[in-house]
Amino acid sequence: MIIVVKNNPDKKQMDNLVKWIKGLGLDIHMSRGDNTTIMGLVGDTSVVDEDLLRSLDIVESVKRIQEPFKNANRKFHPEDTVVDVGGHKFGGGHFQFIAGPCSVESEEQLITVAKAVKAAGATILRGGAYKPRTSPYAFQGLKEEGLRLLSVAKKETGMPVCTEIVDIRCLDLYEDVDIIQVGARNMQNFELLKELGRTKKPILLKRGLAATIEEWLMSAEYIMSEGNTDIILCERGIRTFEPYTRNTLDLSAIPVLKELTHLPVLVDPSHASGHARLVLPLSLAAVGAGAEGLEIEVHNDPPHALSDGAQSLRPEQFDDLVRRVDVMLPVVGKERDR
Amino acid sequence: MIIVVKNNPDKKQMDNLVKWIKGLGLDIHMSRGDNTTIMGLVGDTSVVDEDLLRSLDIVESVKRIQEPFKNANRKFHPEDTVVDVGGHKFGGGHFQFIAGPCSVESEEQLITVAKAVKAAGATILRGGAYKPRTSPYAFQGLKEEGLRLLSVAKKETGMPVCTEIVDIRCLDLYEDVDIIQVGARNMQNFELLKELGRTKKPILLKRGLAATIEEWLMSAEYIMSEGNTDIILCERGIRTFEPYTRNTLDLSAIPVLKELTHLPVLVDPSHASGHARLVLPLSLAAVGAGAEGLEIEVHNDPPHALSDGAQSLRPEQFDDLVRRVDVMLPVVGKERDR
Amino acid sequence: MIIVVKNNPDKKQMDNLVKWIKGLGLDIHMSRGDNTTIMGLVGDTSVVDEDLLRSLDIVESVKRIQEPFKNANRKFHPEDTVVDVGGHKFGGGHFQFIAGPCSVESEEQLITVAKAVKAAGATILRGGAYKPRTSPYAFQGLKEEGLRLLSVAKKETGMPVCTEIVDIRCLDLYEDVDIIQVGARNMQNFELLKELGRTKKPILLKRGLAATIEEWLMSAEYIMSEGNTDIILCERGIRTFEPYTRNTLDLSAIPVLKELTHLPVLVDPSHASGHARLVLPLSLAAVGAGAEGLEIEVHNDPPHALSDGAQSLRPEQFDDLVRRVDVMLPVVGKERDR
Amino acid sequence: MIIVVKNNPDKKQMDNLVKWIKGLGLDIHMSRGDNTTIMGLVGDTSVVDEDLLRSLDIVESVKRIQEPFKNANRKFHPEDTVVDVGGHKFGGGHFQFIAGPCSVESEEQLITVAKAVKAAGATILRGGAYKPRTSPYAFQGLKEEGLRLLSVAKKETGMPVCTEIVDIRCLDLYEDVDIIQVGARNMQNFELLKELGRTKKPILLKRGLAATIEEWLMSAEYIMSEGNTDIILCERGIRTFEPYTRNTLDLSAIPVLKELTHLPVLVDPSHASGHARLVLPLSLAAVGAGAEGLEIEVHNDPPHALSDGAQSLRPEQFDDLVRRVDVMLPVVGKERDR
Repeated sequence: MIIVVKNNPDKKQMDNLVKWIKGLGLDIHMSRGDNTTIMGLVGDTSVVDEDLLRSLDIVESVKRIQEPFKNANRKFHPEDTVVDVGGHKFGGGHFQFIAGPCSVESEEQLITVAKAVKAAGATILRGGAYKPRTSPYAFQGLKEEGLRLLSVAKKETGMPVCTEIVDIRCLDLYEDVDIIQVGARNMQNFELLKELGRTKKPILLKRGLAATIEEWLMSAEYIMSEGNTDIILCERGIRTFEPYTRNTLDLSAIPVLKELTHLPVLVDPSHASGHARLVLPLSLAAVGAGAEGLEIEVHNDPPHALSDGAQSLRPEQFDDLVRRVDVMLPVVGKERDR
Repeated sequence: MIIVVKNNPDKKQMDNLVKWIKGLGLDIHMSRGDNTTIMGLVGDTSVVDEDLLRSLDIVESVKRIQEPFKNANRKFHPEDTVVDVGGHKFGGGHFQFIAGPCSVESEEQLITVAKAVKAAGATILRGGAYKPRTSPYAFQGLKEEGLRLLSVAKKETGMPVCTEIVDIRCLDLYEDVDIIQVGARNMQNFELLKELGRTKKPILLKRGLAATIEEWLMSAEYIMSEGNTDIILCERGIRTFEPYTRNTLDLSAIPVLKELTHLPVLVDPSHASGHARLVLPLSLAAVGAGAEGLEIEVHNDPPHALSDGAQSLRPEQFDDLVRRVDVMLPVVGKERDR
Repeated sequence: MIIVVKNNPDKKQMDNLVKWIKGLGLDIHMSRGDNTTIMGLVGDTSVVDEDLLRSLDIVESVKRIQEPFKNANRKFHPEDTVVDVGGHKFGGGHFQFIAGPCSVESEEQLITVAKAVKAAGATILRGGAYKPRTSPYAFQGLKEEGLRLLSVAKKETGMPVCTEIVDIRCLDLYEDVDIIQVGARNMQNFELLKELGRTKKPILLKRGLAATIEEWLMSAEYIMSEGNTDIILCERGIRTFEPYTRNTLDLSAIPVLKELTHLPVLVDPSHASGHARLVLPLSLAAVGAGAEGLEIEVHNDPPHALSDGAQSLRPEQFDDLVRRVDVMLPVVGKERDR
Repeated sequence: MIIVVKNNPDKKQMDNLVKWIKGLGLDIHMSRGDNTTIMGLVGDTSVVDEDLLRSLDIVESVKRIQEPFKNANRKFHPEDTVVDVGGHKFGGGHFQFIAGPCSVESEEQLITVAKAVKAAGATILRGGAYKPRTSPYAFQGLKEEGLRLLSVAKKETGMPVCTEIVDIRCLDLYEDVDIIQVGARNMQNFELLKELGRTKKPILLKRGLAATIEEWLMSAEYIMSEGNTDIILCERGIRTFEPYTRNTLDLSAIPVLKELTHLPVLVDPSHASGHARLVLPLSLAAVGAGAEGLEIEVHNDPPHALSDGAQSLRPEQFDDLVRRVDVMLPVVGKERDR
């Protein structure tokens, strides 16, 4: 961390600052120029409150040199973390498809879709039981009944299941869920993250709508700081000024994340674009960018889906997508789990 | 709601669409042009799933004409809602200052600041007990002890208190709190909103970091749909590309909100800017834009505050701010509660 | 175009509005509901000033149904436009690499890089002669001498050349240039666009830093409206809140553009990311998304480049990139020009 | 400027870097920690190419400590610059209204509006002769005839005139214009800026649609580096995700600019919002934020204006606005020029 001190700082304030920093167990390297004095803080600066420093009268600016995340940081954990979800591996050269309907609607619907996506190559079944919707008047999911149907489908097909949690008080109901999804709107629901950090279940952590990569990794850090390191990140689009797509899929984030962290990184092209016809090109793009898996909405009868029909593929479209991804995977050094 | 149908639509699909819309209790007005057929849906379109419509093969685009919020909509409730917080009125020409430290740190600190802001003109005391922080390693607030100290300060000074809730499971602890704040990160924590909708307490609903005005009003709608209509909106800055300020305070939102909704609207210039020296100009700007109150961080000793010191005013700065606002209020037709 | 009229509009104003619209040669379809009257305008609505309509007292809102661009619109020109640049085809299943140094620095540098990128598979040589730089104190390019060196390299290697124009007054100097690039900062320099519309040269039109897809197509429309239809669009990243990358490459724009327009679409992954190590993954992503070519900065000695060294590939990295793209092209139905 | 060097850097590369930096006339202060070596560059770092540094293998990151602008920097010019426009002063406690129609439409219209805004308190007359429009099919202004009418109005009313330049080749036509406006879309048209830097006329430099404050000041620097220091900055809204307003007026930029630069800062609330009914609240907000003047569109007959009618005030609304601003000015320590 670098502190730029104003010209001619008050000596007493300067002494106090130096004392305070040393009290945090840090060393200081001073560089005095004509117009500025620069203090380089050496040691574990994750304990330093940047905003506090900035508020001091003698401080002109503060720049962080090291990332504020530790457990998620590749510097301190150079090898890829490989997360096992019901026997399927994420990270370390593996590639997985998580697929299924946006919302669980009925046993028949879920099992039909599950069998279709499994046949096409998906290894994990997704399906929303609790749906966070912008409007209180929109369909909010089958809730407990949805979780029950996921268990039925899991037994029927042998696929591990992935579903979103929206209420910290319902965690007990997720016992039979293999990987718990944290949606974009809850990415900074820190109490939920801490609670999930105390479970033993893999977590699929989606990026918040306007979260920086650093904030996203800090949310992973929240979970990891409580002991759970089985985290998979999932890019799903960020909010920008462009109205043609619901969100702007930030694929640059994929190679950036692979540098910064050892955690596996997936992409959800369905929510990002909001249009089924964009799912194929964005899926291929995600694979090119280095994604280690895709989470894709598939519906047996999209126009009648109760939510997000506009972004769901039909099973035959999903099958075609998997075939194309298969051709690309060797280019990016990955292998699809079968 | 307007549905633009593609050229030469399949007749059977068209018939199905018409039947489905009528089944929702809506009337349809058709306009057939050379290149496009336009369907105008008349009736309560809040029940229609836009995304579903967009997914249909024969549909080119869907445009909503009416706002999707009802309880919060000024069209159906033309008079200003006036929210009473411990005897102080928000809305309807009243102007209030909510002030206090970012975090509750100790009884002495809280009471010192409370007395100072009350003397300057604040009517509601704010103070964070539970602090949502980006980093799990940052100070997270005194929690229950913080709530206890707020009760002490309330008794000591007679000021109603305002504090943030971050965990739905702690709601019972907020019995002595006069207005519960929902922070930006929880603006779309819908389970929390629904629970707060079942309380009788006024809610201060901050705008999410990247929430549109419409989404924000839909979050108010979540609370209102459960029966609680005592909601005060608070603009606190949105995320943009500009790095000089922590957030970009969106003051255009104030007059827009005053048109769209009957709920009172405040501004928090402290969190928006992240710098104490921007608080005065942004406060005056907020008053000019039509804000009905300000939420301001004040600290007796900013450089040692445990969080957000950089954005807190000293009591004498707050006092100066109130004096200047007083001169401006007649220009915007408001009166400060004393 | 849809006009939503307010409740109980003034009859005289309503009559005036109807008369004005009919005077523009448009038909009106009226839908009267309980709360709103909707006017559907049928005909060529590109002549209607939306802002003017919005300003009328009786109008609540205006929604455009048809795109405001005509010449660039795929609806009126369903087949792909194929642009020929010195014998190399863009669009219609062809795939091209435009490569070369960010800035032309010397004859030796330019020719060395040109030969290397040609050997690797590039068909068009790029090189900046006039460089728009944020700072007036930064290197602004070799200017006329740079253009002369491009002609030398073109003669030496047989490659058509691509370079940016920044000053409308210099157009005459571009006679030997095969495709003129309009940079992001000049995307809405309408006088320049009109002048380029009067030339016979292909134009590479980059997306503005914060331009919507629609604005971008309107800029293409400016050129086309003057008679020049040889336009290639080039996505190069948009401005968002994310600081890790210089810009956020908007790859969702590629499939969206392929629907909206018949013009070829390229991607420049070098400027988007600002980091050489992101160029490979973003290039593969762009191919997956459907790009019809890539514009890539290559330098024989990146660390000493006078500008943008940080984002340039070395020739051997570019060669590896082309090899990987070659494997992917069949997946997206394209063939590289050789 | 701070350079963070990677762990265990190659010794030869490190020596080269040190030699290169010293060759630029800079001193280096080294801080060696366990994990990082930090180099503090002392001297005039505006000559250093950051991107080049970042591209070096041994460099982890580069952070600029000093602002890259010099002439515009308040540090090197602590007193407010006061710009004289036809006898009216901008900056240094003065407050001015620039008002008039968006587009010059006719002599009668221009003179009617000019007299009205002068009577209400405006000191400078604005009016668009050349209009940059997103669509090539929209009205582009009366051009030369518009400039001629501005001269007529200037003679008739004695008001200095302000109008936008869009084509560098037309500069000679602006001889009788008192302050030349550079619009948002041309903020980084560097060739135009340099040419304007060689004139003796005051320049009203609008902020680009997605320009950071630093980029905006760098554009001012372009003009200043050619010798013209009579620059007035004008905030007019930035592009964000919020669709209710055309742009998001960034009023936080006003106090930030007053710290960073000595140049006067105005606000244009008309273009920012796009709605006449938002002009009053945003004008008052701008005054509160510290603006030193307002540029406001006024039209005698808004609904028939040829462009931007939706955002123009009627003369009586402008008069009311001036009256309200007058009450506020003492609060912010400014005086309106009469």
